[in-house]
Amino acid sequence: MIRVTIWYEYVQEAGYVTPELEAALPEEWKARMHEWLPQNSERIRRAYPNGLMESLAKYLRKNPEFTVTMTNLMMPDYGLSDELLDNTDVLIYWSHVLQTVLPDEAAYRVVKHVQAGMGFVPLHSAHQSKPFMYLLGTTGTLRWREGDFCRVWTAAPGHPITEGIPEYIELSEEEMYGEPFDIPKPDDTVFISWFSGGEVFRSGCTWTRGYGRIFYFQPGHETSPSYHNPYILRIIENGVRWAAPVRMRESFECPHIVYSPEDARRPKN
Amino acid sequence: MIRVTIWYEYVQEAGYVTPELEAALPEEWKARMHEWLPQNSERIRRAYPNGLMESLAKYLRKNPEFTVTMTNLMMPDYGLSDELLDNTDVLIYWSHVLQTVLPDEAAYRVVKHVQAGMGFVPLHSAHQSKPFMYLLGTTGTLRWREGDFCRVWTAAPGHPITEGIPEYIELSEEEMYGEPFDIPKPDDTVFISWFSGGEVFRSGCTWTRGYGRIFYFQPGHETSPSYHNPYILRIIENGVRWAAPVRMRESFECPHIVYSPEDARRPKN
Amino acid sequence: MIRVTIWYEYVQEAGYVTPELEAALPEEWKARMHEWLPQNSERIRRAYPNGLMESLAKYLRKNPEFTVTMTNLMMPDYGLSDELLDNTDVLIYWSHVLQTVLPDEAAYRVVKHVQAGMGFVPLHSAHQSKPFMYLLGTTGTLRWREGDFCRVWTAAPGHPITEGIPEYIELSEEEMYGEPFDIPKPDDTVFISWFSGGEVFRSGCTWTRGYGRIFYFQPGHETSPSYHNPYILRIIENGVRWAAPVRMRESFECPHIVYSPEDARRPKN
Amino acid sequence: MIRVTIWYEYVQEAGYVTPELEAALPEEWKARMHEWLPQNSERIRRAYPNGLMESLAKYLRKNPEFTVTMTNLMMPDYGLSDELLDNTDVLIYWSHVLQTVLPDEAAYRVVKHVQAGMGFVPLHSAHQSKPFMYLLGTTGTLRWREGDFCRVWTAAPGHPITEGIPEYIELSEEEMYGEPFDIPKPDDTVFISWFSGGEVFRSGCTWTRGYGRIFYFQPGHETSPSYHNPYILRIIENGVRWAAPVRMRESFECPHIVYSPEDARRPKN
Repeated sequence: MIRVTIWYEYVQEAGYVTPELEAALPEEWKARMHEWLPQNSERIRRAYPNGLMESLAKYLRKNPEFTVTMTNLMMPDYGLSDELLDNTDVLIYWSHVLQTVLPDEAAYRVVKHVQAGMGFVPLHSAHQSKPFMYLLGTTGTLRWREGDFCRVWTAAPGHPITEGIPEYIELSEEEMYGEPFDIPKPDDTVFISWFSGGEVFRSGCTWTRGYGRIFYFQPGHETSPSYHNPYILRIIENGVRWAAPVRMRESFECPHIVYSPEDARRPKN
Repeated sequence: MIRVTIWYEYVQEAGYVTPELEAALPEEWKARMHEWLPQNSERIRRAYPNGLMESLAKYLRKNPEFTVTMTNLMMPDYGLSDELLDNTDVLIYWSHVLQTVLPDEAAYRVVKHVQAGMGFVPLHSAHQSKPFMYLLGTTGTLRWREGDFCRVWTAAPGHPITEGIPEYIELSEEEMYGEPFDIPKPDDTVFISWFSGGEVFRSGCTWTRGYGRIFYFQPGHETSPSYHNPYILRIIENGVRWAAPVRMRESFECPHIVYSPEDARRPKN
Repeated sequence: MIRVTIWYEYVQEAGYVTPELEAALPEEWKARMHEWLPQNSERIRRAYPNGLMESLAKYLRKNPEFTVTMTNLMMPDYGLSDELLDNTDVLIYWSHVLQTVLPDEAAYRVVKHVQAGMGFVPLHSAHQSKPFMYLLGTTGTLRWREGDFCRVWTAAPGHPITEGIPEYIELSEEEMYGEPFDIPKPDDTVFISWFSGGEVFRSGCTWTRGYGRIFYFQPGHETSPSYHNPYILRIIENGVRWAAPVRMRESFECPHIVYSPEDARRPKN
Repeated sequence: MIRVTIWYEYVQEAGYVTPELEAALPEEWKARMHEWLPQNSERIRRAYPNGLMESLAKYLRKNPEFTVTMTNLMMPDYGLSDELLDNTDVLIYWSHVLQTVLPDEAAYRVVKHVQAGMGFVPLHSAHQSKPFMYLLGTTGTLRWREGDFCRVWTAAPGHPITEGIPEYIELSEEEMYGEPFDIPKPDDTVFISWFSGGEVFRSGCTWTRGYGRIFYFQPGHETSPSYHNPYILRIIENGVRWAAPVRMRESFECPHIVYSPEDARRPKN
């Protein structure tokens, strides 16, 4: 049984922000937000009537191997309480417009849980979410443009995350993310994408941090229908299974070993 | 010409802390500090009469390829001003007892400069310095014990950092740091150390973050004479040369590419 | 169900070589062999009365998840027929004194099967077996000495191969293998060993070649009792499970794609 | 001073094969060869009147840092004698139609020299040359098609091989090589290419084998003018400088260390 938690902003779908979130917004956004969020809400709901992550949640719930909890930025503790994370094996994480609003202490709760063994599957624009940047130590910058055709190539066809996935997948419309992608060298470059405007992108990458495994996957712009594509869903499912922890780290101390292993081995008299 | 900046705490050598640093100390340390620092000062000065980094600075200054600036935690801006970092090609960094006292904004100045291309050579106990942890995304935890004999093995003998270094180096007394060392997979594991108490340690490791290169090197406990050892000095010199930037990153934006490369290639009419 | 094949030389245990193997020996060995093999046979049988791999086979057979086939160098096709390898998910491979006697075509049958997805678990002295060297492209050289105490440290405690394994394992007597170990950078350095004579060694390493995964593990000198140690057996079991193929590669051609994906996407009229 | 050797087939440019090479050809090629080579010769000479590598040689020779030797498959010892390789710091290697004709012993001379420290820069179709496959342990397979537009993206802009290279380079016509590219995980993925037919490719990759460094670079189909492009020339120049050896390995033995480092350290009486 893998306990999956899906976290996302939900702010755009909701069409409003809580007072707590609003207070944390940069001044210049506050005015735009009230106008802009309802518009975006409509655009997202056209592709995902019940919210961006509903389709993925439904897909994963069909599999008795998973229990799925949904949570979001608008909930208490920003939807990322220690209690919830303590009961999460793999955290799927989608964020975009309010990435900087998440307080550092919430971001570090995610970081700490990954270092302790929790799997982490940041999606799409989470390439500049705080947990992603804090775990990788890079800026996550890239080129971008809305509205390209995208072809996702399987670059590591023996990798568990590619199980059941063909040589390539075509997405009729996705947001272009292009190289250079400012990330540490991935452990595995599982997918590389081709965009019709002329760019390429390492769109499926893995890393390890502490006991935890990370799988970043690029598709999933909020107004593109990618999370209805069965291959995209399968890749995320594979990623969740791959990122599930082997064991959890319990202490984060640097143990002071006064009595050394060689002391212990020496004959006592 | 490589502009090298050597940054260290200098607090132990000085035997006191500035009021600014003192204010930032955890309560339980404040009392101990006044008693403990003068004692430590004496111990360090026994091995390094002019401060821990003096020997290294002197060694590097002999080489006309380098210009060397020394700075420390007790200086304005914690010795890590943007102006200084802007004029640094490679930052050698030693910290220990006051790692947590360095404010996040100073640590992030280092992080940003590394991401932009500045080389970074954290030494010994800097494995839990803020810049090291923030760049790597891991805790840097390890086992430790003072007073072991240490043998540093060259594990990657073709690597530039090993130039002029024999198969192994012996240090009659070093602080033991032992595995598991909580770091991301190194790009290169250049050295692995053997300790007389029974532990092993990846004591020379490299990573890349953004345009910047990082070389961590373990020897250098403040009361051990390692920075007088000519091989240790040579390794750090090699590391500095290896970490010197190729070019600097200028913008940290995610460029919005409305007019795509393929748009540009299409014949205009 | 994972189909495990355990291949080893068995020549030392048998105390003789087949005429076919003898013909392939270097001249200077032929005389020594008849004297030396019976002596070695006795030494191995003291530690492993039924042959070096019997204890491991027995251990794996207890697990209904595995079917285990044993084969060796003295069998037809050197115990490495295409038919057998076609029916193998993971090949455990131990070789030593007759490594060079295995013909290239047999070694390349192993290489091809690994590239197609078969897991490969070379043990101990297989660091200079032909399949190991041909898959990695390096010489596998190292320092060696018989009869050290050995402490195997878990360097990657979140890795699946470390499941159930403590911080370190002690082996009262093992052959020392020491750095520099001439291997490509491992995907994961899972274990690092400490030897009483003063050396260190990356004793558990993984790589990927094509669709296949490789786990090298150092303990297992033929006269040391390491394959009776429950932790060593568990590590090999974990390695087998980790190396089991996700899917198999079927063609090794470079496909000539005359009709491109973009041709296929263009509207036909 | 870096001693660069440029090795290529030259067979297509010459328009004929030596009797020695002809004898080694597969039967079905022999007939085609006499018809096909003169045709190809004409096509190559249209792009490169003095042979495919003449333009690169001329470019490198302008730099007093390099001495350049040209050699090819049609010369004695297949242009790859031990004497020549002993005097080579970096070997640039282009091969295509006669890759399988090179005998294993010549290929292994290259392999051994790389393992000893010689830099190796295989170009384009050398992805299935024997030295490339033997050093990497993979098949080098990929998708291919002649005649695409190609855009080479700089994926690792801080890497020394990218010095002086812009964000991307456009090649009006190159042979398409597409993923999945069957290679071990590169140490660095320096360039990723976009092809107009819809494919992507890791077109600039590095690895280390023994003391030697390898840089594979994809552009350079024999009828495309890529080796006249100043950026392509600069990348190869950068690759040569990056791959130049730090020091050479002298022995390939596994030293038997009877008297251990700890024996040496113990007080004698």
